[in-house]
Amino acid sequence: MQANESMTAISDLMDGFGRAARSAAEVLGIARTEQKNHALRAAAAALRAQSQKLLAANDRDMHAAAARATSKALLDRLNLDDQRVEAMARGLEDIEHLADPIGTVLAEWTRPNGMVIQRLRVPLGVIGIIYESRPNVTADAGALCLKSSNAVILRGGSESASSSAAIHTCLVEGLRAAGLPPACIQLVPTTDRAAVGYMLGEMADSIDVIVPRGGKDLIARVQREARVPVIGHLEGVCHVFVDQEAELGMAGRIVLNAKMRRTGVCGAAETLLVHRRCTATHLAPLIKMLLDAGCEVRGDAPSVLADARVKPATEQDWYSEYLDAIIAVRVVDDVDAAIAHIHRYGSQHTDSIVTENSATAERFLARVDSAIVLHNASTQFADGGEFGMGAEIGISTDKFHARGPVGVEQLTSYKYLVRGTGQVRP
Amino acid sequence: MQANESMTAISDLMDGFGRAARSAAEVLGIARTEQKNHALRAAAAALRAQSQKLLAANDRDMHAAAARATSKALLDRLNLDDQRVEAMARGLEDIEHLADPIGTVLAEWTRPNGMVIQRLRVPLGVIGIIYESRPNVTADAGALCLKSSNAVILRGGSESASSSAAIHTCLVEGLRAAGLPPACIQLVPTTDRAAVGYMLGEMADSIDVIVPRGGKDLIARVQREARVPVIGHLEGVCHVFVDQEAELGMAGRIVLNAKMRRTGVCGAAETLLVHRRCTATHLAPLIKMLLDAGCEVRGDAPSVLADARVKPATEQDWYSEYLDAIIAVRVVDDVDAAIAHIHRYGSQHTDSIVTENSATAERFLARVDSAIVLHNASTQFADGGEFGMGAEIGISTDKFHARGPVGVEQLTSYKYLVRGTGQVRP
Repeated sequence: MQANESMTAISDLMDGFGRAARSAAEVLGIARTEQKNHALRAAAAALRAQSQKLLAANDRDMHAAAARATSKALLDRLNLDDQRVEAMARGLEDIEHLADPIGTVLAEWTRPNGMVIQRLRVPLGVIGIIYESRPNVTADAGALCLKSSNAVILRGGSESASSSAAIHTCLVEGLRAAGLPPACIQLVPTTDRAAVGYMLGEMADSIDVIVPRGGKDLIARVQREARVPVIGHLEGVCHVFVDQEAELGMAGRIVLNAKMRRTGVCGAAETLLVHRRCTATHLAPLIKMLLDAGCEVRGDAPSVLADARVKPATEQDWYSEYLDAIIAVRVVDDVDAAIAHIHRYGSQHTDSIVTENSATAERFLARVDSAIVLHNASTQFADGGEFGMGAEIGISTDKFHARGPVGVEQLTSYKYLVRGTGQVRP
Repeated sequence: MQANESMTAISDLMDGFGRAARSAAEVLGIARTEQKNHALRAAAAALRAQSQKLLAANDRDMHAAAARATSKALLDRLNLDDQRVEAMARGLEDIEHLADPIGTVLAEWTRPNGMVIQRLRVPLGVIGIIYESRPNVTADAGALCLKSSNAVILRGGSESASSSAAIHTCLVEGLRAAGLPPACIQLVPTTDRAAVGYMLGEMADSIDVIVPRGGKDLIARVQREARVPVIGHLEGVCHVFVDQEAELGMAGRIVLNAKMRRTGVCGAAETLLVHRRCTATHLAPLIKMLLDAGCEVRGDAPSVLADARVKPATEQDWYSEYLDAIIAVRVVDDVDAAIAHIHRYGSQHTDSIVTENSATAERFLARVDSAIVLHNASTQFADGGEFGMGAEIGISTDKFHARGPVGVEQLTSYKYLVRGTGQVRP
């Protein structure tokens, strides 16, 4: 096929997705809560009923990936088993049980002229989700968009194409059972490689917001090419600052959990900052604890002196999101120096201070400009579920529209309803 | 100067603005309310004290504009007199008296593990405002950004360069009096024509959001070129739908006010829709009223039949934001046809229904997907002040981040503070 014929094909295909999504969004915008919940329940049932088909589809993806000598980490992200299918079905049921954000009256007031003004929560409209290898994102993201009455256009990675298609079939079965348009949740085939570029660049009229979920390359591409608003999910270069007035036992528990509970999540700590005045008491024990737990430590001069196993850190280490059992350690002069380090090298994701001094803690909480700032708690709490917000689509490092965990409420907008009795403006 | 030298000069200049704004924003983020209010009071005093200098600067702009044979409407927008200077000073004092949005606890809850989570309102950071001829935007926008603790980079039109510079001097005087960095409010000289493009395309690291205020050409350019989030202000193709159960007297008052009170504002009605079943009773009187008030009427076939002075409307009329004493009139079959017309031709700004039937009204309120939807009230209430929100920077037609009037609260983000006692994630 010629290049221009191929471009016509992709634009026809994607414009069709866009129109179908727009018209499904209109139906969803006035759908009853119970209708949406019905669809979620039926989709969960379909996932369980068709689990053998799902696992067979996943087998095809796994074989293709193994044939390409894919990394073990990617194979693990890609893999489905009975437990993971059950977890997906339960995930849909959890979203079913969330409160419906749509139609909530966010504020209501009466003007001196008698007009009653309401600010009402409404859907954003059509959401585009571009993601990579994890097939469960198909279920999670589809369900979160449905619950928030947004039509969604999903574009998953080619590695998980068969798995995602099988999961999508179950979601559509749920929509049909509830009498909702199948186009509420659409999956773009991965055979069209130009689809991502088209979604980012050419669909500003039919997609209201794009949420990228994936690695740095995807995020960078989205930020470079998007002509549509984006809810960004940048990296999490998260810090724990151990103050001179930190209780050593608590500091150890928090640092160990923040770094080592799971190293591959965006809320994992990447840098440990230690107050200079407690170098003698805290630095060596904390470093020893990390090393003994199997964590590589890259440190500044005092850290290297503290333990022979510490490697010297380079400037690049302070910027690094390792997503691995590696931590950078640095001694800083005081809380303000810790804040300055975080502002210079951090990614405004999640940062924590350990201290018994509440004035120092409040200074850190007020001044660190990150989505989540914690006092005496692990950075690994950076999660919508842990916040009590229910399932999430990710953690936004943007300040615009949504910051921190992005759950159903963050996938909404609002409108104003004004009820009068004939008022005109003087 | 060579083109590449000129590009180096503009990037040096603008990067300097960006760095200064970032560092001013850090100070502003933790400034006390009284310090910001002090700056606003002192700026208002400076505007009054230097009104003669302001008027002289404005004279220079007016002469230059007149020499370019500028339109009367533009000259009026550009012109300052004692009254307008006083109105600007009062505008600053109004913003001084608004509640400080920053630091407000938007929500607070305790997790089962004892962690206390707060969602706290914080500034966006650095805002870029690109505007055209009205010099008072310099004062309004500067003050709204200051009150919401955002540093601002202002770029006004070249027509109002001298006026804006004189106003900016007063704002900086206010900042100095309050001990705040002058870079909290910066004005980019209009001599550098490439500055707008640089702000839109190259300052994603130093500008958090851009707010364009101006005509269609500016808005289109911003939407095309911006690599930074934008709070968009599209046109207002606003509708009044007169239902079959509308009381004629009320319908007349609302339609006349919505169209003719001020024709140049974005909340002015541009299209009148009339229910087919009240064609006989309502159509002719409403059209006659508009014509008698000096409004040109462009209508569909029934409207042309209703009054000999009505001109036939074309398809383009339904899309038009006239911003003038012109209205398009169309007969529709029922409320659903009115909603369909509004979704097809409208701009999701402000739309109103006139009816005595509350079920019909509620259907219209629920289904019309616009920032502001009114029942029995004029579309000209589309205004932050009329909503009781205080001064505004405009009406957003976006669904993302801010919708409807954009006041100090809409110029903010939030962050999460988590206070624990040593919690780690299981």
